Amino acid sequence: MADGPEKPAAAPAESGQSTWGGRFAEPTDAFVARLNASVGFDRRLYREDIAGSKAHAAMLAKQGIIPPDDAAAIRDGLDAVQAEIEAGQFTWSADLEDVHMNVEHRLTARIGPAGGRLHTARSRNDQVATDLRLWVLRRIDDDLVPRIDRLQRALLDVAEAHRDTVLPGYTHLQRAQPVLLAHHLLAYVEMLERDRGRLLDARKRAAESPLGCAALAGTPFPLDRGLTARALGFTRPMANSLDAVGDRDFAVELCAAAALIMTHLSRFAEELVIWSSQEFGFIELGDAFATGSSIMPQKKNPDIPELVRGKTGRVFGDLVALLTVLKGLPLAYNKDLQEDKEALFDAVDTVADCLEATARLLPSTTWRADRMRAACDAGFVTATDVADYLAAKGVPFREAHHVVGRLVGWCIAEQRALPSLSLDEFRRFSDAFDDDIRRAVTVEASVAARTSEGGTAPARVAEALAAARARMADRG
Amino acid sequence: MADGPEKPAAAPAESGQSTWGGRFAEPTDAFVARLNASVGFDRRLYREDIAGSKAHAAMLAKQGIIPPDDAAAIRDGLDAVQAEIEAGQFTWSADLEDVHMNVEHRLTARIGPAGGRLHTARSRNDQVATDLRLWVLRRIDDDLVPRIDRLQRALLDVAEAHRDTVLPGYTHLQRAQPVLLAHHLLAYVEMLERDRGRLLDARKRAAESPLGCAALAGTPFPLDRGLTARALGFTRPMANSLDAVGDRDFAVELCAAAALIMTHLSRFAEELVIWSSQEFGFIELGDAFATGSSIMPQKKNPDIPELVRGKTGRVFGDLVALLTVLKGLPLAYNKDLQEDKEALFDAVDTVADCLEATARLLPSTTWRADRMRAACDAGFVTATDVADYLAAKGVPFREAHHVVGRLVGWCIAEQRALPSLSLDEFRRFSDAFDDDIRRAVTVEASVAARTSEGGTAPARVAEALAAARARMADRG
Amino acid sequence: MADGPEKPAAAPAESGQSTWGGRFAEPTDAFVARLNASVGFDRRLYREDIAGSKAHAAMLAKQGIIPPDDAAAIRDGLDAVQAEIEAGQFTWSADLEDVHMNVEHRLTARIGPAGGRLHTARSRNDQVATDLRLWVLRRIDDDLVPRIDRLQRALLDVAEAHRDTVLPGYTHLQRAQPVLLAHHLLAYVEMLERDRGRLLDARKRAAESPLGCAALAGTPFPLDRGLTARALGFTRPMANSLDAVGDRDFAVELCAAAALIMTHLSRFAEELVIWSSQEFGFIELGDAFATGSSIMPQKKNPDIPELVRGKTGRVFGDLVALLTVLKGLPLAYNKDLQEDKEALFDAVDTVADCLEATARLLPSTTWRADRMRAACDAGFVTATDVADYLAAKGVPFREAHHVVGRLVGWCIAEQRALPSLSLDEFRRFSDAFDDDIRRAVTVEASVAARTSEGGTAPARVAEALAAARARMADRG
Amino acid sequence: MADGPEKPAAAPAESGQSTWGGRFAEPTDAFVARLNASVGFDRRLYREDIAGSKAHAAMLAKQGIIPPDDAAAIRDGLDAVQAEIEAGQFTWSADLEDVHMNVEHRLTARIGPAGGRLHTARSRNDQVATDLRLWVLRRIDDDLVPRIDRLQRALLDVAEAHRDTVLPGYTHLQRAQPVLLAHHLLAYVEMLERDRGRLLDARKRAAESPLGCAALAGTPFPLDRGLTARALGFTRPMANSLDAVGDRDFAVELCAAAALIMTHLSRFAEELVIWSSQEFGFIELGDAFATGSSIMPQKKNPDIPELVRGKTGRVFGDLVALLTVLKGLPLAYNKDLQEDKEALFDAVDTVADCLEATARLLPSTTWRADRMRAACDAGFVTATDVADYLAAKGVPFREAHHVVGRLVGWCIAEQRALPSLSLDEFRRFSDAFDDDIRRAVTVEASVAARTSEGGTAPARVAEALAAARARMADRG
Repeated sequence: MADGPEKPAAAPAESGQSTWGGRFAEPTDAFVARLNASVGFDRRLYREDIAGSKAHAAMLAKQGIIPPDDAAAIRDGLDAVQAEIEAGQFTWSADLEDVHMNVEHRLTARIGPAGGRLHTARSRNDQVATDLRLWVLRRIDDDLVPRIDRLQRALLDVAEAHRDTVLPGYTHLQRAQPVLLAHHLLAYVEMLERDRGRLLDARKRAAESPLGCAALAGTPFPLDRGLTARALGFTRPMANSLDAVGDRDFAVELCAAAALIMTHLSRFAEELVIWSSQEFGFIELGDAFATGSSIMPQKKNPDIPELVRGKTGRVFGDLVALLTVLKGLPLAYNKDLQEDKEALFDAVDTVADCLEATARLLPSTTWRADRMRAACDAGFVTATDVADYLAAKGVPFREAHHVVGRLVGWCIAEQRALPSLSLDEFRRFSDAFDDDIRRAVTVEASVAARTSEGGTAPARVAEALAAARARMADRG
Repeated sequence: MADGPEKPAAAPAESGQSTWGGRFAEPTDAFVARLNASVGFDRRLYREDIAGSKAHAAMLAKQGIIPPDDAAAIRDGLDAVQAEIEAGQFTWSADLEDVHMNVEHRLTARIGPAGGRLHTARSRNDQVATDLRLWVLRRIDDDLVPRIDRLQRALLDVAEAHRDTVLPGYTHLQRAQPVLLAHHLLAYVEMLERDRGRLLDARKRAAESPLGCAALAGTPFPLDRGLTARALGFTRPMANSLDAVGDRDFAVELCAAAALIMTHLSRFAEELVIWSSQEFGFIELGDAFATGSSIMPQKKNPDIPELVRGKTGRVFGDLVALLTVLKGLPLAYNKDLQEDKEALFDAVDTVADCLEATARLLPSTTWRADRMRAACDAGFVTATDVADYLAAKGVPFREAHHVVGRLVGWCIAEQRALPSLSLDEFRRFSDAFDDDIRRAVTVEASVAARTSEGGTAPARVAEALAAARARMADRG
Repeated sequence: MADGPEKPAAAPAESGQSTWGGRFAEPTDAFVARLNASVGFDRRLYREDIAGSKAHAAMLAKQGIIPPDDAAAIRDGLDAVQAEIEAGQFTWSADLEDVHMNVEHRLTARIGPAGGRLHTARSRNDQVATDLRLWVLRRIDDDLVPRIDRLQRALLDVAEAHRDTVLPGYTHLQRAQPVLLAHHLLAYVEMLERDRGRLLDARKRAAESPLGCAALAGTPFPLDRGLTARALGFTRPMANSLDAVGDRDFAVELCAAAALIMTHLSRFAEELVIWSSQEFGFIELGDAFATGSSIMPQKKNPDIPELVRGKTGRVFGDLVALLTVLKGLPLAYNKDLQEDKEALFDAVDTVADCLEATARLLPSTTWRADRMRAACDAGFVTATDVADYLAAKGVPFREAHHVVGRLVGWCIAEQRALPSLSLDEFRRFSDAFDDDIRRAVTVEASVAARTSEGGTAPARVAEALAAARARMADRG
Repeated sequence: MADGPEKPAAAPAESGQSTWGGRFAEPTDAFVARLNASVGFDRRLYREDIAGSKAHAAMLAKQGIIPPDDAAAIRDGLDAVQAEIEAGQFTWSADLEDVHMNVEHRLTARIGPAGGRLHTARSRNDQVATDLRLWVLRRIDDDLVPRIDRLQRALLDVAEAHRDTVLPGYTHLQRAQPVLLAHHLLAYVEMLERDRGRLLDARKRAAESPLGCAALAGTPFPLDRGLTARALGFTRPMANSLDAVGDRDFAVELCAAAALIMTHLSRFAEELVIWSSQEFGFIELGDAFATGSSIMPQKKNPDIPELVRGKTGRVFGDLVALLTVLKGLPLAYNKDLQEDKEALFDAVDTVADCLEATARLLPSTTWRADRMRAACDAGFVTATDVADYLAAKGVPFREAHHVVGRLVGWCIAEQRALPSLSLDEFRRFSDAFDDDIRRAVTVEASVAARTSEGGTAPARVAEALAAARARMADRG
């Protein structure tokens, strides 16, 4: 995209380098024209481009800069162009380079000279920044935040249906202490809540209007930038014209938030893949969310979690791409900025898809409470509780640890699980054991004991579920 | 860092694998011990580690979990350890693996068995997360935000001293329209203002306390997590224990904000480098901020801006490093997370340095208003104004453009500048030119005309300066 | 892409989950099917897919695994399918998921049951790896290496046409010492030569055949993998079946080579942008490779170099994307690997475009030897030569430096250039100056003096040009 | 690092800005001096710096540029300085900025004025490039390649000790077909072999000498650059002086190779972590390579594989850092290039550590052949073989698939494993089954059948092992 004019662009028949005045003697190289053209991807901005133009034209008329009749013609003409596009009847032209020129050209073809007045007091530099910010706001509002909400609700649904399901909590992928499945899933609800906050914070900074900053320095026309800003749903006009046309922070910030969402989804995906293995066997994905093999009938591949995990790469890549583009660019607009869109589009599309896919697969997933419970029984996950027990009986901490160490070592050698031990067997290791140790080493007692705030005790988890539901309810 | 105990760690003489009970028959491989040890870099967290331990001990005493005397001994002992560290009298030991064990070991050596009670109801998993979050809060509050403020003030100082200085505004590094230097510098004040907002938003999410989440599942002890959270300056305890020990979002979010700051600094650095060239000659850096060559006496190299631009790379790299570490990790704590610190430390240190360096070099920079002005005169930067002039006289837009195109083409051929043209010469191209065209094509008139909100007209820029100053004044 | 069968895939009417046997009761979720499908991008591999299938079928027949008639039918059928695709008459179906199934389905529709025998002794896992490697070889051979050669030739053409053009060599963007423009351009020829070497080294590792490794473990059929490898232009079969189906090193290595090419092109692009500025004015891009502004007739924007510089971001991003995908994947095939293609395609397309664009713009660029020479005269670029002169006359080095320092300081104050000084003026600073100093401080003498190997002296540059031309000639 | 002089640098007492001549009136800002100084990290290059200086001095003497006595004094003096450094008796000074100035300053202090002649005909620009390339060659030769060899040998040792061990081959982390453990480990030997090739290819391009290119343009002194190149182990002098001082391709290329090595190690690490889980239980790491928990005696955490996996992040980050630094830099040397070293050092150190750690942990790892075998028995991994069996008996492929699908479905429902089925039970699904099916569905038969080149059949694996051993033997 070249510097935009502040005045009407050339009519179609005169488009091309002839509008650039006497300096250009040769037509653009065909290869170069293709490389330059952005309409192949920026046509996705047509909705925002038309909304921006309508707001601009209405403001121009209100400020007496163009006649009211022209503004009305522009408004109706743009509505008609949008209808054409949405009906699939619009012919996009690479010769017209970008979405802005395509729309304006068609507008002028429909309504005549009045169309030429639309570009008064703006430039493609502020126009494209406006369009892209509007697109960001729309995607955050319509896709990203709602899909985060949806995934949170899907996690809560499973959590509530599995209030009593216990699985081993892992550190280092080693069984550590038993936790409620609901507690585990609520960890992801928390991560997504931070993601949501980051999106809304990014939205706040994206919601400022560059419109009216023109090519780079402002314009002599008596604009009311606050009017167009409000009409388009921005909170205010951007304060500095050079900044407004050269800034792409909002794209980077959204990509960075997207990268963190993908990080969270990749962690969950990794767990779903591991849990789907025959060795873990904690879950079985619904048939609709896995694929098989035409030759290996035993296979049920967790394709969707794998894809989500893999797509993390492209979003990290999109973020790096945008940062690289911006590094070391002098003010104000540089053509490099045309490289902002594809990475941003890809990151937003990918995150939206992956949130959706993850939310969709949860309801049909079978959660094998039996397998999870069996894993708890086999893994000494209550060893910590034995030490706690002895300490509570007055055994000095260090001695308690040694006792449990020897006890567990013996169990491993004998292939015994803690809950299977008789009181006599416990007493071989310490006289402090009493009959209540049999209860203390159960998985249920272990989970029930972890009552500290944020802990996995059922009462705590119930509180957390209720709080999360209440939060979701407020969102309507 | 391994899973931390919820109970006192081993006394020094017994440290090492003996504390892990009967499963380990061999000592740790020496190479592995070195690779595992983090004290070489995490010792930077000693202040936060000690503050966290003091808050934890006070809470344990208040909740009746440890005796008040022990808590007092712990508090005093930790103060003494901190004093030792700050006096350079502390011996860090790689055998003790990390900052936590080093501090606790020394504490126990000083105060005896009471030191062992400090680790009750916590684990290294929640401890390290707490320390790192406290470090993030401190660096944001003490270093990053104040240095952003300082750089903004330094920019405003230059802007105010150059209210009348005009330079060409560039797009595509081509002279486009004249702007005030103050306007140009205010664009960076705006970017930094967004950076500041991002830091404060990141701070908000970092300011939640993991302390008391223990290894992963909470603890049976009757903690008051709100108490330690408040004592340490957190806004609240984190809601989910699995999330609390496995989350490093706050590190990524801070690195992402840092990457954007570096992007802005790299853009300014690029301009300083270009402006320092003999060809532009817009500025001359102070002797203290440039280097020369012992053989080429004409050289005055803009080393500091170049370094700032170059250091952008390491911050982008730090961000990628952190994201990569987190991709695909199952819950909760995994050893991979030990790789969080060096990247985060490096990013924060680098940004703090680069903000500082940029703020420092501004006051001694010479701004060559004469050269900037001369560049305006030579470059047809008021061509847009000629077209505006004709349009205002009633010449249809398209005809006006053509007139200016021919006019500028003639000037290039004749090596003439627009302000040097006589009225007769203007009239060769259009009868609509009147004597006031001579004023309209001046740089001053061009700048003065761009009165739209956010534009470069002196009155607009004065308003923007005043608003920015008022904003800074509110910050004390 | 799921694990491929080693035997014929389902006939179209039976495709879908029914082929996966009794485990799947539900059809694939529609959203998931869309997310899973890769045919939208992997259809670009149709040529390689068909070539691979033809080689496989011929080998199967030669080994007696399928009847010769079937192999002939398959060959002819695949040729017909390829003709359909290339005539735009092929209907791609997302339901058939990927290019492999689309082609095979169509083949079977055309030739009946024989088509089903094609998939004997292979799997989609080895098939897709084969296709992608063939694509890499083709793009290196047909696009990347030839375009590097073309750009090298274009640089040499300019260099030869400007054997006498001198411009300041810069360090820190400060004028340092004069160099020949040809010497400067030859630096890029060298960079590209290394790029070429990296591509050929990457090619070497990509040129091994995974075909016949089947799903992951090999196959019981008596294949001749060497035969298919040779038929397809590979140097040998890959040695380990698990490695063969899970490896994407070749994609990463090509992206890394692409990232370095972009680094080089971005450096040249930066120079073209800076040189195009009015302040430097060293070059003027041809009209066909720049864009103007419909309102600012003075503008001639270096869009193409800016785009090339900006596109560096996407290639860095592609590299990061691929590395991220691969991090931490267990053997052998995982669905994450489906994310390999788009990043690779994008990186190769982008580099090919940017090499082409840079080569194309060189011939029509005007190299302003006068401006370059004027920059040499104004910038004390021969100060080093003055010190060399004095040293040669026996003045101790340190004293010589001081003399030149004072001399240049005086010139700056008096706004004088070194070549303009009279002998008397030189002698004010040292008696050692003699009349030959007037010659020594000329730009020509300075350049001529730098005769060390690889230096900028005309004779050295002529040698370098000749050597580069000879190298190119060997390439035909 | 500033532009280096071609002549002797200032003597210590005169160092600082006074050597830069009359343009600098003020001393360097202290903060800036700290930021500028690189000696904190580039002192690691002392060995290379001294070797480079010795070669340069010897060449200068041979060419008659400096007296032979001076060269001898320089050589002996540098040896003495190196001895001081290696004895820990050298005082590094940040005021002297970098390793080059520190060494030269000390040399001059030791040997007097002759030391000043060392810097004749070179600059810090070619000096630092030379040093860094020598460092790269040394690390590749002494650390990276030997550690790859060591890890390959360690893998081969395990493979040979487990020639008969069978485990499930996985795709999508689902059991697919049985493979030999040796075959699985050989996949990593192959990956490392490609890594080795990439290092040697990178070495080839790094092994060219920049020495003698001086500041940027060459030098008037009659150097013999081939002589210094050979003396230092380079294959030839670099061909273009501007390229030589501004190029950092070799650093990026090495980092890219390092990133791929880390990718491979991260994949193996992921497997080791998963295999260490109680659920898989395929391996138990040696006590020296795992850590425990002082509270959870059952824990044995695979810290080393986790760390290796995590450290992948920092190497990816280093690569991104270097690429970012280089993007858009004009020729020749820019201060940004000072940011090349820390990323490169970190990447090489990290890869060397991770190769070493992985090689070290293999010998003490317990490979649980029983658990691996049990996993084969339970998972229908020979379902493919049943279909192959039927096909060989003449059952049409599609019918064979359906038979196996129904058969496996029945087994799942009845909780039966394929090898446990009686002939009668097989015959319920197809009359084509004969008694030899009982043998065909064994894991041993399945593995033995996969005899295609690169397949997992024992004979094939034995060949591969022998070939790998022979390759290693050739390396001495």
